[in-house]
Amino acid sequence: TDSLVIAGKAYASRLLVGTGKYKDLSQTRAAIVASGAQIVTVAIRRTNIGQNKNEPNLLDVIPPTEFTLLPNTAGCYTVKDAVHTCQLARELLDGHSLVKLEVLGDAKTLYPDVPATLQAAEMLVKDGFQVMVYTSDDPIICKRLEEIGCVAVMPLAAPIGSGLGIQNKYNILTIVENAKVPILVDAGVGTASDAAIAMELGCDGVLMNTAIAEARDPVLMASAMKKAIEAGREAYRAGRMPRRRFASASSPSEGLPF
Amino acid sequence: TDSLVIAGKAYASRLLVGTGKYKDLSQTRAAIVASGAQIVTVAIRRTNIGQNKNEPNLLDVIPPTEFTLLPNTAGCYTVKDAVHTCQLARELLDGHSLVKLEVLGDAKTLYPDVPATLQAAEMLVKDGFQVMVYTSDDPIICKRLEEIGCVAVMPLAAPIGSGLGIQNKYNILTIVENAKVPILVDAGVGTASDAAIAMELGCDGVLMNTAIAEARDPVLMASAMKKAIEAGREAYRAGRMPRRRFASASSPSEGLPF
Amino acid sequence: TDSLVIAGKAYASRLLVGTGKYKDLSQTRAAIVASGAQIVTVAIRRTNIGQNKNEPNLLDVIPPTEFTLLPNTAGCYTVKDAVHTCQLARELLDGHSLVKLEVLGDAKTLYPDVPATLQAAEMLVKDGFQVMVYTSDDPIICKRLEEIGCVAVMPLAAPIGSGLGIQNKYNILTIVENAKVPILVDAGVGTASDAAIAMELGCDGVLMNTAIAEARDPVLMASAMKKAIEAGREAYRAGRMPRRRFASASSPSEGLPF
Amino acid sequence: TDSLVIAGKAYASRLLVGTGKYKDLSQTRAAIVASGAQIVTVAIRRTNIGQNKNEPNLLDVIPPTEFTLLPNTAGCYTVKDAVHTCQLARELLDGHSLVKLEVLGDAKTLYPDVPATLQAAEMLVKDGFQVMVYTSDDPIICKRLEEIGCVAVMPLAAPIGSGLGIQNKYNILTIVENAKVPILVDAGVGTASDAAIAMELGCDGVLMNTAIAEARDPVLMASAMKKAIEAGREAYRAGRMPRRRFASASSPSEGLPF
Repeated sequence: TDSLVIAGKAYASRLLVGTGKYKDLSQTRAAIVASGAQIVTVAIRRTNIGQNKNEPNLLDVIPPTEFTLLPNTAGCYTVKDAVHTCQLARELLDGHSLVKLEVLGDAKTLYPDVPATLQAAEMLVKDGFQVMVYTSDDPIICKRLEEIGCVAVMPLAAPIGSGLGIQNKYNILTIVENAKVPILVDAGVGTASDAAIAMELGCDGVLMNTAIAEARDPVLMASAMKKAIEAGREAYRAGRMPRRRFASASSPSEGLPF
Repeated sequence: TDSLVIAGKAYASRLLVGTGKYKDLSQTRAAIVASGAQIVTVAIRRTNIGQNKNEPNLLDVIPPTEFTLLPNTAGCYTVKDAVHTCQLARELLDGHSLVKLEVLGDAKTLYPDVPATLQAAEMLVKDGFQVMVYTSDDPIICKRLEEIGCVAVMPLAAPIGSGLGIQNKYNILTIVENAKVPILVDAGVGTASDAAIAMELGCDGVLMNTAIAEARDPVLMASAMKKAIEAGREAYRAGRMPRRRFASASSPSEGLPF
Repeated sequence: TDSLVIAGKAYASRLLVGTGKYKDLSQTRAAIVASGAQIVTVAIRRTNIGQNKNEPNLLDVIPPTEFTLLPNTAGCYTVKDAVHTCQLARELLDGHSLVKLEVLGDAKTLYPDVPATLQAAEMLVKDGFQVMVYTSDDPIICKRLEEIGCVAVMPLAAPIGSGLGIQNKYNILTIVENAKVPILVDAGVGTASDAAIAMELGCDGVLMNTAIAEARDPVLMASAMKKAIEAGREAYRAGRMPRRRFASASSPSEGLPF
Repeated sequence: TDSLVIAGKAYASRLLVGTGKYKDLSQTRAAIVASGAQIVTVAIRRTNIGQNKNEPNLLDVIPPTEFTLLPNTAGCYTVKDAVHTCQLARELLDGHSLVKLEVLGDAKTLYPDVPATLQAAEMLVKDGFQVMVYTSDDPIICKRLEEIGCVAVMPLAAPIGSGLGIQNKYNILTIVENAKVPILVDAGVGTASDAAIAMELGCDGVLMNTAIAEARDPVLMASAMKKAIEAGREAYRAGRMPRRRFASASSPSEGLPF
């Protein structure tokens, strides 16, 4: 079977989802169930998973018994904040060591601060975390994050929350070709075909939140994304036909100018 | 339920497939079954559906009891040939009147001869055929083919057999917006995401052959295409998030330059 | 020297411009002079070139002694209107036979009515006109218009007045490769790089109006377009480097997936 | 006048060129003269500017009296090598302090090593160099290089020597919008329109080598690039028309889906 293996654990689903921007916890659960996701990422600084006793607790609808929780450091702009947030998550979740690291560079673009990300990744790996890491689509940096010991590297396709789709396919392809750990596109997917394209490029998975939560019908979009990820993965494995200008071309690349 | 209705008949699947270029009839059937297609198009001038008694008959593996056969006029370069081929198909298939018309302009590009297509469509409609029609992605011509009485209009996404994907999204979108009959992308799809994009643009379906038959693993690609069509359709119905440069943009289109 | 030859006459400039949408005749002239254009197209049904004695006359600022006037049939939706408009222009311009034919399909898209265009082109050629013809980017139709005897074929890049740039580069390329008469992109160019791309595809020229007239500074944009057309032409003639993924690739097309 | 100002010095030309890959020094000079470039970058580790007394000296055809030389650190993979190469250049060129820094991440992609680039930039600025710096198209990193004191930041458009054109227009746009120093696209331009696009995005200049040197006719391509840079710059300053689906749209962005 064609599983996604992260930190030694196999997952049938290659779609990872977030929990933000939904109308209420009921819609959150409905969309996540429809997505088929098994890994659900949670912004520790913005989501109540038990820190606030008297507020609705996400874990009531997304219980750790049913999903692999992936605490993330969204909203952290420094190494210190990011590392501390991971440690807090580990405490709240009884020693859970799988985290998604993001150290942001600024509040407008939400692009990563790459040097700080490298530093935080190194500290977290040394501290025993299994680090999935959000970064830019720079192939050199992605390789370095793998060498540091991250269990998965997650380049952005486009800015977080933009829905612009994959801006630089060549970068994603190069990152995938160079990698020995799973590469997951994180951020920028806007609709189903964007997710399919990521998978056709050879990515091991896609993480998204806004594209589902801000669709007019989030639950239906979650189902669309589930199918798109599977479609893209199968197309990748099936080996697509060559592109050519005309059916009559004797050689596929004959005269393919773009 | 969200059915594709063509000539008054409802279909659950929005993926239509051809039968050419497979290794053998067994692979043909396996791929078509995996695609979930209910409408299967057959090139009458190239495929034995009973004309040649002693050769393998496609209908043995794609029986009319299981699939809606869609005879097509592939290989016809004149109005006369195309009309005659449809009449031959009707005889061979006991009065079957649903056909896919294509009148080709030349053997290199396999682009339609639009004036001849208009003329043949008119003749076939008058002769009682239910005409699905292959054409260029010209919105004016697509509307005229609808007005002539075609039951579905099928603009190309890119040259037949090219696998280049949708070249002119704006044209397809305009055609869809103007249409009162189903619009199906016919020709040019190369991989799963191409099919999803067609559906996200609002197309009612996609017809393909080479993208499945020339994949390294046609049966797996057929499954990918099935899911991609469903994903794209659901994404279209779910209403995608707006594209914006950054999550922080107060208005979606604020500063979207391309 | 590298001239554009239309109907036997050589032009140093490959940029053709319109006269609509300017602030006043003074700006019209300033922009056209800055563009370096030698052929200026005039919408006979919308522009006073002498029909109305008491109104400002375009020919005062764009005199036929300085520019080749190209009367066009903008606003014509029927064969009859288009043919009649050309005949009117010939009278007004003392037997001038070079015209730009457009027969529009609808007022929203301003796409051509291709069958009517073919018919009008045939009538005008028989009537002794030298016909430059606006059409869709359908390679079969473009070839037919050449066979009818048009002196130049002018496929659209995108809808008139859209500024979207070339939507289907493969079509333009195929049209150019098949042609024995000049191919000029007509409609859809929005900025300088769009014009350069048209020329790099091998087009013989570009006709534009809105991209200059609706720029914030039309005269400066006219200069930009002049240089862009020359740049694109020279790049085409100079033979661009092959595209490749990396400088180290031993073969250009090695692994070029898109 | 619209000058490019780098480190306090104004240049009329916004095209910077390299000296590699030409047939001989005579072609090198002819192409560079045709490009109109005033700043010429020289790979100190690969080019003889006096290190080797008995070999042809680039300075014989590209004299510092006629051009601003921009020594670069092409081929350097470590901070130490890059810094040392700059110091060597300063000695060879009598105290010349303007340099182009590149610290490469690997020999296949020729992508920058971003953390090493930041470190080398810091050291060189402190050592009195005026540093123009090659980097990835990461907006956060570009801003940081500006803050370090680099006099110009030079994000790649695509891999060095690829000719693929600008892969991520949104990144380049964001970098330009955030910058207080000149932003020049460095690497990846393949033909004239690519250069024009860079300028239309608001870049202050473009540096290229392979696109000119590997054209079939380098001197003609150099001329094309000169005009393309000017065209793109003028189009940027002229303010392009809005993109819209149809001329009849009441609002530009009405229904612009991509």
